[in-house]
Amino acid sequence: MTTPPPPSRFPVPELTKLPEDVRQRILEVQDKAGFVPNVFLALAHRPDEFRAFFAYHDALLLRESGLTKGEKEMIIVATSGANHCLYCVVAHGAILRIYEKNPLIADQVAVNHHKADITPRQKAMLDFAMKVCLDSATVGEADYAALRQHGFSDDDAWDIAGITALFGLSNRVANTISLRPNDEFYLMGRVPKART
Amino acid sequence: MTTPPPPSRFPVPELTKLPEDVRQRILEVQDKAGFVPNVFLALAHRPDEFRAFFAYHDALLLRESGLTKGEKEMIIVATSGANHCLYCVVAHGAILRIYEKNPLIADQVAVNHHKADITPRQKAMLDFAMKVCLDSATVGEADYAALRQHGFSDDDAWDIAGITALFGLSNRVANTISLRPNDEFYLMGRVPKART
Amino acid sequence: MTTPPPPSRFPVPELTKLPEDVRQRILEVQDKAGFVPNVFLALAHRPDEFRAFFAYHDALLLRESGLTKGEKEMIIVATSGANHCLYCVVAHGAILRIYEKNPLIADQVAVNHHKADITPRQKAMLDFAMKVCLDSATVGEADYAALRQHGFSDDDAWDIAGITALFGLSNRVANTISLRPNDEFYLMGRVPKART
Amino acid sequence: MTTPPPPSRFPVPELTKLPEDVRQRILEVQDKAGFVPNVFLALAHRPDEFRAFFAYHDALLLRESGLTKGEKEMIIVATSGANHCLYCVVAHGAILRIYEKNPLIADQVAVNHHKADITPRQKAMLDFAMKVCLDSATVGEADYAALRQHGFSDDDAWDIAGITALFGLSNRVANTISLRPNDEFYLMGRVPKART
Amino acid sequence: MTTPPPPSRFPVPELTKLPEDVRQRILEVQDKAGFVPNVFLALAHRPDEFRAFFAYHDALLLRESGLTKGEKEMIIVATSGANHCLYCVVAHGAILRIYEKNPLIADQVAVNHHKADITPRQKAMLDFAMKVCLDSATVGEADYAALRQHGFSDDDAWDIAGITALFGLSNRVANTISLRPNDEFYLMGRVPKART
Amino acid sequence: MTTPPPPSRFPVPELTKLPEDVRQRILEVQDKAGFVPNVFLALAHRPDEFRAFFAYHDALLLRESGLTKGEKEMIIVATSGANHCLYCVVAHGAILRIYEKNPLIADQVAVNHHKADITPRQKAMLDFAMKVCLDSATVGEADYAALRQHGFSDDDAWDIAGITALFGLSNRVANTISLRPNDEFYLMGRVPKART
Repeated sequence: MTTPPPPSRFPVPELTKLPEDVRQRILEVQDKAGFVPNVFLALAHRPDEFRAFFAYHDALLLRESGLTKGEKEMIIVATSGANHCLYCVVAHGAILRIYEKNPLIADQVAVNHHKADITPRQKAMLDFAMKVCLDSATVGEADYAALRQHGFSDDDAWDIAGITALFGLSNRVANTISLRPNDEFYLMGRVPKART
Repeated sequence: MTTPPPPSRFPVPELTKLPEDVRQRILEVQDKAGFVPNVFLALAHRPDEFRAFFAYHDALLLRESGLTKGEKEMIIVATSGANHCLYCVVAHGAILRIYEKNPLIADQVAVNHHKADITPRQKAMLDFAMKVCLDSATVGEADYAALRQHGFSDDDAWDIAGITALFGLSNRVANTISLRPNDEFYLMGRVPKART
Repeated sequence: MTTPPPPSRFPVPELTKLPEDVRQRILEVQDKAGFVPNVFLALAHRPDEFRAFFAYHDALLLRESGLTKGEKEMIIVATSGANHCLYCVVAHGAILRIYEKNPLIADQVAVNHHKADITPRQKAMLDFAMKVCLDSATVGEADYAALRQHGFSDDDAWDIAGITALFGLSNRVANTISLRPNDEFYLMGRVPKART
Repeated sequence: MTTPPPPSRFPVPELTKLPEDVRQRILEVQDKAGFVPNVFLALAHRPDEFRAFFAYHDALLLRESGLTKGEKEMIIVATSGANHCLYCVVAHGAILRIYEKNPLIADQVAVNHHKADITPRQKAMLDFAMKVCLDSATVGEADYAALRQHGFSDDDAWDIAGITALFGLSNRVANTISLRPNDEFYLMGRVPKART
Repeated sequence: MTTPPPPSRFPVPELTKLPEDVRQRILEVQDKAGFVPNVFLALAHRPDEFRAFFAYHDALLLRESGLTKGEKEMIIVATSGANHCLYCVVAHGAILRIYEKNPLIADQVAVNHHKADITPRQKAMLDFAMKVCLDSATVGEADYAALRQHGFSDDDAWDIAGITALFGLSNRVANTISLRPNDEFYLMGRVPKART
Repeated sequence: MTTPPPPSRFPVPELTKLPEDVRQRILEVQDKAGFVPNVFLALAHRPDEFRAFFAYHDALLLRESGLTKGEKEMIIVATSGANHCLYCVVAHGAILRIYEKNPLIADQVAVNHHKADITPRQKAMLDFAMKVCLDSATVGEADYAALRQHGFSDDDAWDIAGITALFGLSNRVANTISLRPNDEFYLMGRVPKART
C-alpha cells in the first residue's frame, strides 16, 4: 500500500495552477501543520467554494465567543460523529486533542459524548449541538433556557448552532466526495511531545 | 396583528450601522426584490457570517453547471422541506416558481417530490439530494452511476451535494434563530403578472 | 402542458354513471367551490368507500366541538405535511387559509408548526396531533393532561385524534393512488378578495 | 381482578340509550360472536363515527376482491403490529386464526411477517401494506409492479392500501382512547373446536 | 402441512451425536416441558455457544433479584417484540403466561406495554428495558433515579439491562437463523388447566 | 485529574476476594496485556455473568472460521460504533489495529465502514453485520446470497451474526453501567513498535 488513496474522488489541482490566494492559504497551513490537510486540496478543485468555506470557518472559529477553542472542536467532533464523517472526526479529533491537551477526549466525544470526560456545561453544549444537528425543527426557547442555566448567552447558542451547521455542510460534502483524512491526523495529540 | 413578528429571535442591526459591503448587498437585493429578505437582516447581526454565507451561495448558485437555475432551487426547496425549515421553503419556493414560471411546483417539491410535475431526470437529481440531506454516510459510487444515467456529470453531483449541504446549514441556523419568511414571499410567482 | 395529469392513477368514472347520492354530493361541492375537488372524482371509483369517507369526514368536521373549524384544518394540514401527502396539504391548506382569513398560515403549519403564527393552545393541539400521527402507541394520560392545561376536554382530545387518524387514512390512500390536487387550490385564500 | 378494566378511557353508553341502528348492529355482532367486541361499545360514544367506521369497514372487507378474507385480516394484523395497537392485533388476530383455520398465523404475522407460514404472494402483499403503513410517501409504480408479479391487480393494490389505511385510523384512535380487547379474543381460534 | 418447517435454516444435529452435557441439558428440558424447545436444537449446532448462552441465561434468570421470575419474562417479551423476534415473543410469552398465571399478559406486553395490565412499577421497569434495547447510548443517572422511585436497586437495574441485552443477542441470532418457535408454545398458559 | 474515574458506576471487587477461576482469567489477561481491561473488573462484580460472557466470547472469537481474527474485530468495532459504545470502540479498536497492523483502520471502521481501507469482501461482511445490528427482523435469504458472492459460507454468516449479537449485548451492558475504557487502549497499535 505504497501510494495512498487520493484525497477525494474528484481531481486535485496542482498547487502551481491555483489562484494566488488559495495557494497562499494552502502554503500557510502546510507551514503550520507540516502537511496539507486534504480538505484544502479537495476543495481547491473549486476555488470559490474553497474561499467561502474557509471564510465561514474563520468567522465562526476565530470569533470572540463564550466558547473556548477546545469547546468549538468538541462540537465539530460530536456532530461529525453523528453524521458519520470520517474526515471531520479524524482531522478535528486531532485538533481537539491538541487544544485540550487530552489524548482521550476526541474518541470519547465522537463515540458518545454522554460518557466523555467533560463538564456538565460542555454536555449541555453538546446536547444543544446534537439537537441542531439531528432535529433542528424542534429547537426552541426551552433549549436556549437549558443553555442559559450553564451560563451560555444567546450568541453562544448561535455559535453552537453555526458550528454545527457549518460542519453539517462539511460532513455532507466530505461524505459525497469521499474526502480522505491525512494519515498524519490519526496520531496527532495522542502521544506526549517528549515521546515523539 | 399590525406589527409583524421580527425577522429572527436575535437583534437586527440598523442598516446605517452595517459595514459598507453588507449594507450594499442589502440595498442591491432590496432594489431587485422590492423588499429586503429577512435572511439578509438576520445574518447582518454577524457580518462575517453574512459575507461567508452569501459568498458560498453565489459560488454554488451562480456557477456554470449542468443544472438549470430552476433545478438548483428545486434542490433547495425539497431538502428544506425535509429539514422543516419554514424560511427556506417559503423564500426559495417563491424563487423556484418564478424561475420555472410554474405556480404549482414549489408546493409539490416541498411536500413530496415523488408526486411533483418534474422530469425523471429531475426526480433522480432530487433523490440524490435527499440522500445527501438525510443519509450522506452511505452516498457512494452507485449513486453517482444513477445520476450519470440521466446525463449528470460528477461535477453536477458535487453541485447537487453542495447546494444540499449549504442549505442544510441554512436550515439549521434558520430553525435555531427562528428566521421568519417575509410575508411577500408567500404569494410571489403564484399569480400571472397581468392579474397582480 | 395543456391536458393536466389525471386526478389519480385509477380510472375516474363519468359523472352520469355514478349512483345518484354520489353524483349529488359531487354536484353540491361543485356548486359551492366552483370546481370538483379531485378527491371526489378519485374516490367515486369506489362508491361505498366514497360514502364512508365523507360520512366520517362530516362526523368529525361538522361536529360541535371545542375546536374551531380553522383549528380542525390546522390538524389536517400539519399531519398531512408529516405524512408527505401533497393532495391534503394543498387542498386543506386552501381551506385553512380561507377559514382563518390568513394567507400565510397553511404553509407555516405544513412545514413546521413550531414556527407558525398560532397560539400556544393551538401549538399544544398540534403537538398532540403529531404524536397521534407519528407515535400513537405512547399516547397516554400525560398527553391528555397537557391538553387540559389549555382548556381542551377529553372529547376535544378525541376530536384531535380522530381528525388526525382520518386524514392519516386519507394521506395513505392519496399517496398510493397518486391523488393530484386541483390547480385551483394552490392560490385559494392567498389573495385578498378585492384583488381577484 | 374481578371487574375488568372498562372498554376504553371514555364513557360507554348504555345499550338502551343508543340510536336504533347502532344498537341493532351491536346486537347482531353479539348474536354472532357471543359477546360485544369493545370497539363497538367504545365507538358508540360517538354514533356518527361508529356508523362511518363500520361503513368503511364493510366497504373494504366485504367487497369482492382478489384478496381472500384471511388475507385481508393478515394485512390488519401485520400493520396493527407495526402501529403497536393492542386491540387490533388481538381482535383481528382472532379473526385471522379462524378464517385461516390456523392457530399460529396471527402471532407470526403480528411479530414478523417475514417469518410467517404464508406464501410468497402473501409476503409481497404484506410488504406493500407495510410500506403504505410506514412510508406511504414513497409508494410508486415499482411497488405496483412488484404486486403484479404475484397476480395482484391495481384494484387489489387499492384494497391493500385501503385496509392498511383504515386500520391505521383505527390503531391511532384505539391507542388514544386505550381501547381494550375483550378477554375472549385472546383464545379464539387457538384451540380445535372439539376441545373447547 | 404434515412435516413442520425445521427448527432453523441451519442443520440440527442428532441428539445421539451431541456432547454429553449438551444432550443432558436437552433431555432435562424435554422432561420438564414435554418437548424440546427449538432454541436448544438450533444452538446445539454449535455446542460452545449453546453452553455459553445457557450459562448466561441461568446467570441472569436464576439469580436472586429484586425482580420476580414473571417480571424477568416481561422484559424478554417486551424487548423481543421491539426486535420483532418471533421465537422469543412466542416461547417466552408462554413462560410469562405460566409464571404470571395470566393468559392475556404476554400479548399485551409484546404489542404495547403501555396498555398492559401491569403495575406502574412494572411499567417503569419496561420503560428502562426498552431504552436499553433501543437507545442504550443515552441511558444515564436519570434513568436509574426513575427506577429507584419504584424501589429498584442499582443491581436490579443491571438485571433489567442484562436480560434485555442477552435477549437482544438471542433476538438477533434467532432472526438471522430463522429460529422457529415450537407449535406447542402458542397455546401454553392460555387455557385453564382444568379445561385441557 | 489524578485519580481516574472508576471502571464502571458499579462496585469493583478486590482481586483477592474473587472466585479462583475469575481471578485466574484476570491475571492471565494482565500478564498478556500489561494491564487489566476494565471489562474484566466491571463484570467481576457478577462472577456468573463474567464466566458466561467470556465463554461466549471465546466460543465465537477463538473458533475456526472463514473470518480472520482481524475481520472479527472489524465487526465488533463497526457495530459498537453504531451502538455508540465507548468501551468497545476503544478497546476493540486497539485490538483491531494490532491484528491488522494498521494504525488507521479502527477509526475508519468505527466512523463509517463505507469509507474504510478494507476489501469489498470485508465491506459485504460489515453490511451484513450492520443489518443484524440495526434491523435483524428483515435479514433473509437475499442477505445470505450477498455474502455467498464473496465466498462466505452459511456458518461464516452465523459467525458474523453471533459476534454482532454478542457485542450488541456487551454494548448495551457497557452503556448502562458506564464502562470506561482503560486509558492504555487509546494509543495501542497506533505507534510503530520502534517508536514506543
